[in-house]
Amino acid sequence: MLLRDLGEWELLRRLAAYAPPGQLEDDAAILQPDSGTATAPLVVNTDVLVEGVHFSDTTMGPADLGWRAAAANLSDLAATGCGSVVGLTVGLVAPAETPWAWVAGVYEGLSLALRTYGGQLLGGDCSGGLQRMLAITALGRIGPGAIRRGDGQAGDWLVCTGPHGLSRLGLALLQQALAAEHADALSPGLRQRAIEAHRRPKPRLDAVTALARSQPPGSPWRVGGTDSSDGLAAAAAHLARGAGCIAELDHNNLPIDPELAALPQGERWCLAGGEDFELVLALEPTWAQALIETLPGCCQLGQLRPPTAAAAAGSLLWQGSNQPLEGSTGYSHF
Amino acid sequence: MLLRDLGEWELLRRLAAYAPPGQLEDDAAILQPDSGTATAPLVVNTDVLVEGVHFSDTTMGPADLGWRAAAANLSDLAATGCGSVVGLTVGLVAPAETPWAWVAGVYEGLSLALRTYGGQLLGGDCSGGLQRMLAITALGRIGPGAIRRGDGQAGDWLVCTGPHGLSRLGLALLQQALAAEHADALSPGLRQRAIEAHRRPKPRLDAVTALARSQPPGSPWRVGGTDSSDGLAAAAAHLARGAGCIAELDHNNLPIDPELAALPQGERWCLAGGEDFELVLALEPTWAQALIETLPGCCQLGQLRPPTAAAAAGSLLWQGSNQPLEGSTGYSHF
Repeated sequence: MLLRDLGEWELLRRLAAYAPPGQLEDDAAILQPDSGTATAPLVVNTDVLVEGVHFSDTTMGPADLGWRAAAANLSDLAATGCGSVVGLTVGLVAPAETPWAWVAGVYEGLSLALRTYGGQLLGGDCSGGLQRMLAITALGRIGPGAIRRGDGQAGDWLVCTGPHGLSRLGLALLQQALAAEHADALSPGLRQRAIEAHRRPKPRLDAVTALARSQPPGSPWRVGGTDSSDGLAAAAAHLARGAGCIAELDHNNLPIDPELAALPQGERWCLAGGEDFELVLALEPTWAQALIETLPGCCQLGQLRPPTAAAAAGSLLWQGSNQPLEGSTGYSHF
Repeated sequence: MLLRDLGEWELLRRLAAYAPPGQLEDDAAILQPDSGTATAPLVVNTDVLVEGVHFSDTTMGPADLGWRAAAANLSDLAATGCGSVVGLTVGLVAPAETPWAWVAGVYEGLSLALRTYGGQLLGGDCSGGLQRMLAITALGRIGPGAIRRGDGQAGDWLVCTGPHGLSRLGLALLQQALAAEHADALSPGLRQRAIEAHRRPKPRLDAVTALARSQPPGSPWRVGGTDSSDGLAAAAAHLARGAGCIAELDHNNLPIDPELAALPQGERWCLAGGEDFELVLALEPTWAQALIETLPGCCQLGQLRPPTAAAAAGSLLWQGSNQPLEGSTGYSHF
């Protein structure tokens, strides 16, 4: 059996068997604190970015890559409930003929992200190799409370913290892969936001703060959540599966820019484009409404419901339909 | 300027400018604990292993590679004074035509190392790529006290925790790169120990415990140290440079197996073969003597002395000579 035939999800499922039960189910690992200490639990996350798979010189410069690599990791920290960033380590592989200026650019981008969101460069390692590659491990500390994929419940609203599909649109614009008739119809403002979303995504650590501010008085901390790095539909499916529910999505309320919605591929990119790095959350409705009022751009995506005979736990449905959507599970990196 | 022309040390020196001052000078980063907590400081370390640079199918199987990748990281934790291992994350890159059995083997080796030395698999990420690559980040906690490269002083003894050159000999045997007349002269026992040293190196976390046991009553915790992953000579030079001293080595007391010493390349491999993963320590002489009595295989390598007109800080000399040795700075991975 080759990795190609396994696929990414099955590979991750098999690798999870080497970790303590449940350890690899969330966006990042929450370390058990030492007994008797009041310190917030530490969270650790590792991401690998490979040239030709995750990035290319034609779509982003080295500082974009450094920023993006940091942002992808910090997004996983936010999706686990981190209120602060401790820092990150960098494993860098590059061929010997790589210019120093490229490496310096990557570190400039990483440093800018750390200055923006907190934390320090903690260390790393370098090696030669056939292909440029970055492995980032980020460390953070839980803020007001942990966020877990499995903490949603039937009746929760599904909310997301911002628009989706922009990063995928930005990639298409940078690759000049969009038909001229469609590309020319887009406003300069949207083009710029899409390219920015692709090159300089923003980890939503601010949404964790907003969650704490909007928590209804007296209600316990219970937040189901993940980030939308694998796509909005995949994020909703993760939360549904974790809660043993189905996710009913409101087709009239998709978090998509109207100009993007007018493109033939707009809805597909919104649901499965990936790498928007927003948070997708399952919250008790009062809390969800308070968050939507607190956090600009945050909107309701749908609702978690008990599974039915026609739709098993983990399924996605459009509101008003009984039939699960065809699987849209986002990227495969093999 | 290309990475090839910079070289590994200059590259690491330039990258250190992106971290807080001094942060990247040790084997691993010691995180500042939160104020008001009694928790032992956390230590984090990242290593990258690339096929064709650090490992090859001809010299080790996947479980050896997994063990070795974990051991190299845990060795850096030991060299920083860790008394316990929290766990590690794994970034794995492999071509799509890689067999699942290879990945499973790597994780078996990693898991065995964690069962042996403590800690858990905390998470990770996988991607396709042209070349097999492992990026491991290990987390540990300081035990009795921190060990730093710069904490040696003139008058300290240099000690090391075991023999050197075995891993390099093992590599030569596995590559069938040793002349038949020399290979045939080696005893089966030494051949086996050398191959084991290369494939299954042992991180010396036990030496940290022995350090605490042998600390003279009333003396403060002050331990200069590093591991010998870059070679014994490089380790001694690191400690000398960190202490602003020269390292005077006793040629009659090199930590080398007599059979290996009889080979023409034996002494070179002892000093610069690398990847023996022993600890090299700078200790006040009473403590050094107590450690040598406590820890089997531990021996005196030499002494730290003030620099002279002929030998600047960071130089290595043979005892009785005034002239620094020619530079033997170990590996370059570009």
